[in-house]
Amino acid sequence: MTADLEDTQIAILGAGLIGACWAALFVHHGATVRVWDPQRTALDKLAERMTRPLAQLKELEPESASQGKVVYHDMVEEAVEGAVLIQENGPENLDLKHALYTRVEPMMAPDAILASSTSALTWSELASGFSDPDRLITAHPFNPPHLVPLVETFGHDADRLNRAEAIYRAAGRVPVRMNKDATGHIANRLSSALWREAVHMVAEGIADVAAIDAALVNGPGLRWSVIGAHMAYHLGGGEGGMAGYLSHLGPSQERRWASLGVPSLTQDVCTALVDGVAAEAAGRDIATLEQQRDTALIALLKARQ
Amino acid sequence: MTADLEDTQIAILGAGLIGACWAALFVHHGATVRVWDPQRTALDKLAERMTRPLAQLKELEPESASQGKVVYHDMVEEAVEGAVLIQENGPENLDLKHALYTRVEPMMAPDAILASSTSALTWSELASGFSDPDRLITAHPFNPPHLVPLVETFGHDADRLNRAEAIYRAAGRVPVRMNKDATGHIANRLSSALWREAVHMVAEGIADVAAIDAALVNGPGLRWSVIGAHMAYHLGGGEGGMAGYLSHLGPSQERRWASLGVPSLTQDVCTALVDGVAAEAAGRDIATLEQQRDTALIALLKARQ
Repeated sequence: MTADLEDTQIAILGAGLIGACWAALFVHHGATVRVWDPQRTALDKLAERMTRPLAQLKELEPESASQGKVVYHDMVEEAVEGAVLIQENGPENLDLKHALYTRVEPMMAPDAILASSTSALTWSELASGFSDPDRLITAHPFNPPHLVPLVETFGHDADRLNRAEAIYRAAGRVPVRMNKDATGHIANRLSSALWREAVHMVAEGIADVAAIDAALVNGPGLRWSVIGAHMAYHLGGGEGGMAGYLSHLGPSQERRWASLGVPSLTQDVCTALVDGVAAEAAGRDIATLEQQRDTALIALLKARQ
Repeated sequence: MTADLEDTQIAILGAGLIGACWAALFVHHGATVRVWDPQRTALDKLAERMTRPLAQLKELEPESASQGKVVYHDMVEEAVEGAVLIQENGPENLDLKHALYTRVEPMMAPDAILASSTSALTWSELASGFSDPDRLITAHPFNPPHLVPLVETFGHDADRLNRAEAIYRAAGRVPVRMNKDATGHIANRLSSALWREAVHMVAEGIADVAAIDAALVNGPGLRWSVIGAHMAYHLGGGEGGMAGYLSHLGPSQERRWASLGVPSLTQDVCTALVDGVAAEAAGRDIATLEQQRDTALIALLKARQ
C-alpha cells in the first residue's frame, strides 16, 4: 500500500480517542493532518494516543510508504484552512456541534467536506448548523476506527460523498452509503437489535453472558465477518435462495420475530450483565481486553488481505 | 491435530447436508462413523456430499493424523449399536423424530448419548419421545457445521453433556451450553433479532440489502468474530466497563431498543429482499457464493489458530 493520501490536507477536530485513531489512520496513509481540540490537554496527549494505533497500522500494512505529518493548531479556523476533508469528532451535543460549525463554515474551502463522526445524532439534526448543508456529511466509523474498516456515510451532495469516500478508501476503509438518515446509522442499529436479544436471554436465564458471547464469536459472528445477514438467509434457502427461504420459512421467521424479547435494564438485569462480563473477563482489565481484541482483529484483517 | 476420536464409534442418523458435514468432521478426526438414512439415495450420495467438507478440513488442518472410516447401515438399529454418540439429523418434524427415537432407544448402550442437531425444536419437545429423557441432548451446529465451530448444547444429564462436549471439542468444535431450553437456541435467536432490524431498514429504505450486508461484514460482524456483544459494550464503557456503560448509556440504549423496527414480510418487502440479494450476488450462483464463503471462513479459521 502506497501513501495514497500524500499531498492531502485533512483536518481533525476533536482529538479524543476517535480523533486520535482517525489522525493515526490518515498519517499512516501519507496525509498532512491538521489537528485542533478545544482542550489544550487533548493536544498534549495526542502523540501518546496515536502511538498504539500507528504501531498497529504498521504491523497490519508494513509496506506503507512514507508517513504523513501532524500539525497542531490552537485555532480551529486555522486548522480547517486548506483542508479538503474536515473530520469532526466533538462531543455528542447538538448545540456544541452547531456552535463549532458556525466557526468552521466560513473558513472552509468552497468544495471542502465537513464529515461528522457522530454516532448518536443524524445528518438532519446536524445540517441545521450550516448555511450550506451540502458541505456536511455524516461519516461514522466503527470502533476501533483504524482497524475496523466500516465508515457509514450519508449526505445530500453526491459529489462531496464521492470525494470523501475516495479518501476513506485510500485510507483502507470500506465506506457504506445510506439512502436515508437514521439514528444509529446501520451498524449501531444492528448491534442494538442483537444486544437486546442477548440481554433478554441473560434476563430469562437461558444462558450466561460468557456463553452468549462464545456462541456469537464461534457462530454467527464468525460467519457475519464473511457474509452478511441477508446473504446468509439467501444461502439458507438452498437452491431457491432468498425467494425459496421466504416462501418456505418466511412465516416461521415472522413467528420467531414475535417471540423475541424486550428486556428492561432493571437492577437485577444490570447486575447479571456486570457480573457476567466480569466472569467472562476473568481478571483481564479493559486495556488487556482491548489489546487482545486488536491483536485478533489484526490477524483476521491480515487473513482477509 | 491428532486423530483424537480414534476408537470412537459415532452414529449419524440422517445423511443429508448436515449429516454429511458431521460425518466428514468426525471421520477427519479419526472416528468410526456409522451412517443410516431412511432413503437409500441419501446413502448413495453421501460419499459425494462428504468430498468437499473432507477436502476443506484437510486444507484447514493438514496435519491431522489417520482418517477414520464410514460404515453404511441399512437398519438404524444396527447403526446405533455400540455408538457412544448418536448424532440425529432428521427432518424438523416432531412425530418423525419421536418415531425414530422409539426405534433407537432400546438399542442404545446404557450410557450412550442421542444428540439431536435440531434447529427449530426444543429439548423439552423432543424428550417426550424417550422413556429415559436423560439419554437425549440437543447439540445444534451452525452452518456450515464442519467449519463454524459452534455447537449449542442442552440436556438434563450433566455427565452425558460433558462426554458429548468432550467429543465435539476433540473434533475441533466449541460447545456452548445453555442453562434453559429455548426455541432457536442462542445463535438463531441472535440471528433472527439482527435480521429483523436488517429487514426493517430495507423496508424503510434506509439502506440497500448489499449496503447493510457490507456494513455488517466490515463492522460489527468483523468485531463479533473476535469479541461478543456483551464484551463489546463492556469495552464501550471505557474505564467504567459494563457498569459505566449501563449507568451512562443504559437509558439511551433502552430508547434505541424501543425505536427498532418490527417489519412484516409483505410482498413488497420480499421483492426488495430478493432483488437486493440478487444485486449483491451480482451473478454468482449459490454454489459459487458458498464456495467463496467457505474459502473466506477457512482463511479466518487459519488466522485464529
